Amino acid sequence: MPNQSIAWLDELSTDLSKRSGSSAARPSMRNVANSVAFLSGGLPDPRELPRDTVVAATAGALELEGEWALQYGPSTGDPNLIAALLDKLARDQGIEAQPENILITAGASQAVGLAARLLIDPGDVVISEAPTWTGAVRRFAAHGAEVREVSVDHDGTNVDELEAVLADLAADGRRASMLYILPNFQNPMGVTTTAERRDRIVALAREHAVPIIEDDAYYDLRYDGPQAETLYTLADGESVIYMGTYSKNMAAGIRLGWAVADAETIARLTALKLEGGTSPFASQVAAEWTRNGTLQAHIELLRTHYRAKRDVMLAALDNAMPEGVRWTRPQGGFFIWVTMPDTVDVTELAGALAAQGVQISAGPGFYHSDSGHHEFRLSYSYPTDDEIINGIEMLGREISQRL
Amino acid sequence: MPNQSIAWLDELSTDLSKRSGSSAARPSMRNVANSVAFLSGGLPDPRELPRDTVVAATAGALELEGEWALQYGPSTGDPNLIAALLDKLARDQGIEAQPENILITAGASQAVGLAARLLIDPGDVVISEAPTWTGAVRRFAAHGAEVREVSVDHDGTNVDELEAVLADLAADGRRASMLYILPNFQNPMGVTTTAERRDRIVALAREHAVPIIEDDAYYDLRYDGPQAETLYTLADGESVIYMGTYSKNMAAGIRLGWAVADAETIARLTALKLEGGTSPFASQVAAEWTRNGTLQAHIELLRTHYRAKRDVMLAALDNAMPEGVRWTRPQGGFFIWVTMPDTVDVTELAGALAAQGVQISAGPGFYHSDSGHHEFRLSYSYPTDDEIINGIEMLGREISQRL
Repeated sequence: MPNQSIAWLDELSTDLSKRSGSSAARPSMRNVANSVAFLSGGLPDPRELPRDTVVAATAGALELEGEWALQYGPSTGDPNLIAALLDKLARDQGIEAQPENILITAGASQAVGLAARLLIDPGDVVISEAPTWTGAVRRFAAHGAEVREVSVDHDGTNVDELEAVLADLAADGRRASMLYILPNFQNPMGVTTTAERRDRIVALAREHAVPIIEDDAYYDLRYDGPQAETLYTLADGESVIYMGTYSKNMAAGIRLGWAVADAETIARLTALKLEGGTSPFASQVAAEWTRNGTLQAHIELLRTHYRAKRDVMLAALDNAMPEGVRWTRPQGGFFIWVTMPDTVDVTELAGALAAQGVQISAGPGFYHSDSGHHEFRLSYSYPTDDEIINGIEMLGREISQRL
Repeated sequence: MPNQSIAWLDELSTDLSKRSGSSAARPSMRNVANSVAFLSGGLPDPRELPRDTVVAATAGALELEGEWALQYGPSTGDPNLIAALLDKLARDQGIEAQPENILITAGASQAVGLAARLLIDPGDVVISEAPTWTGAVRRFAAHGAEVREVSVDHDGTNVDELEAVLADLAADGRRASMLYILPNFQNPMGVTTTAERRDRIVALAREHAVPIIEDDAYYDLRYDGPQAETLYTLADGESVIYMGTYSKNMAAGIRLGWAVADAETIARLTALKLEGGTSPFASQVAAEWTRNGTLQAHIELLRTHYRAKRDVMLAALDNAMPEGVRWTRPQGGFFIWVTMPDTVDVTELAGALAAQGVQISAGPGFYHSDSGHHEFRLSYSYPTDDEIINGIEMLGREISQRL
């Protein structure tokens, strides 16, 4: 069906920006198909998408639970998926929770959207990392929030800045409606917030009574380093909404994610979810896939695969970047954040690169304020090794010319 | 996992009422499991749920479209499903449309919800059939609509009443925001609006510039009689949002439906759908299932099966109902509507029946106003033949005692 495929390629650009590219360089799949190096987006590697295991899980799920897989399901989500997720969260994240603490959503992006709808009234203050996921930037703006940005460095959220923002608000007699944090392999910076800072974040949020939205979409894709406790666990599950997704460890098209929180918050989030329980059929398939060990095995495979991709990109950057350019060295996830000298404008650079078939994600789209003009995000998840090397070489030449 | 199953049985009651039972008698699956005759709800027959064909379709879909089935998808819905649906709608409903005229939703219930969100501001007038689907009753109330009811008889929507309501509004200088119609095997009355009345409805709506929401969830389940054109077709696709679902002809758990309308309306509905494109994975499976002929074959099977169930219930009613009780004789769908003499209160009756393990759906929940106290809906889709016969016999005795 070539015609439909091409039409879809153009449409995909809108959706990719939901979870991936900056608004300054929204990719279209036509760009992807024609690109020399698609270093933008947050697309999983299509060569690693599970296929046979998903078919097998479908057969298994309908065998065991056929009647219920094909009937209407409960609002908070399919019970088999909730049970399988609770086991996974306990085993992998060290999160102890009950069924009433979970809501199954259409991906983590929907979970963030529901939290925003629950917590943000127009004019409210939201405290957010900056740079951060472009989808959150757009959502907070859409809700009319006044965003106070807190910068991110190699140890994660800048907690001194957070403390200052909270004190500032308190002095004005104001309270933030939420604090939005991506603690592991942050999108877009790739950095991870240290254990020590996490303790401080939880203490500050508790002191100022600010709910934390912990967006942990990339949790399972750790390649190096020790894993710090989740903010949810450190806060004993109080005033934290912990979010995750199957988009990165299984497949984006399965469109399943979760929010974990106290039972009352889950009930309120569920009430906002007007379309009822998320896809019972897909949920049953994902539950079986999780329960029969495929998820764990697939995560191991992805870690090996993506670790190597990351290393290829880091080596390419070492080889090709001119003096004065700095970048992060992520312990997991999909992204590397590059900071250039102030003399290089990233939007102009991104345009020049795109004309040569190399896509990067320009910095401004990741900020709530007008910032990021000398920064950009690279993604190593989608391109092949050769595409990474060639693309980074071209990037190095283009930056050098502008210094 | 017995504990999770039992918890889910209790939770299911909330969701069943979304598409089935009246609010006065929300069933729980515990009731279903323990009932003598579950004549409530709008549950499909679990013995007719497709299983092997769904697994086969999953394999086929991932074979052909594996990469895309597991990636992010476009906002309006999976292109393969849209294409398959356009073919089906042209072949079965005689609806000619293009991809830009379709939005894939999480069931027809979500489509109705999006239309309500788009068209209804608090205080707006909505014209609705009464009785009607309980979900619509709740949704219009939730949006703060002022509902003008139009009654339904054996030929469907009462168009003389509709005309009077529209004239009344015009005289007050007001315009209705929408007109909600279920033209085929209406939920809950089971009746079908005639071709002549459909022409008049379309003409009146056009004259008064009122958008029509055509909820056609049961279209494919026709057992007898000729099929009248859809309102959408009669209106040349102008100012009509036509809705359908896979819940009745495939499986409720696949949670897929559609809205068909002019391109601008589809774009506006899509913008309201905050969770992005509906379940790419489930959509690919349903697309394959539709494309490879399984949908058509399954519909034939369901028609044969449900026609027989309807006939068993009609015969049982003929045998068991006392003088003065009337009921509809549906040409399709799941429901029969029963009207009793004014001396019998249906809420008390339903309670007495439930105590004996027989569930019916009491009338009041299907009305926007305080009505329906001597009416109820029966569903023949879920119970076995024996359960139908025994349940109707018990119903007959209980009604007789109250006359």
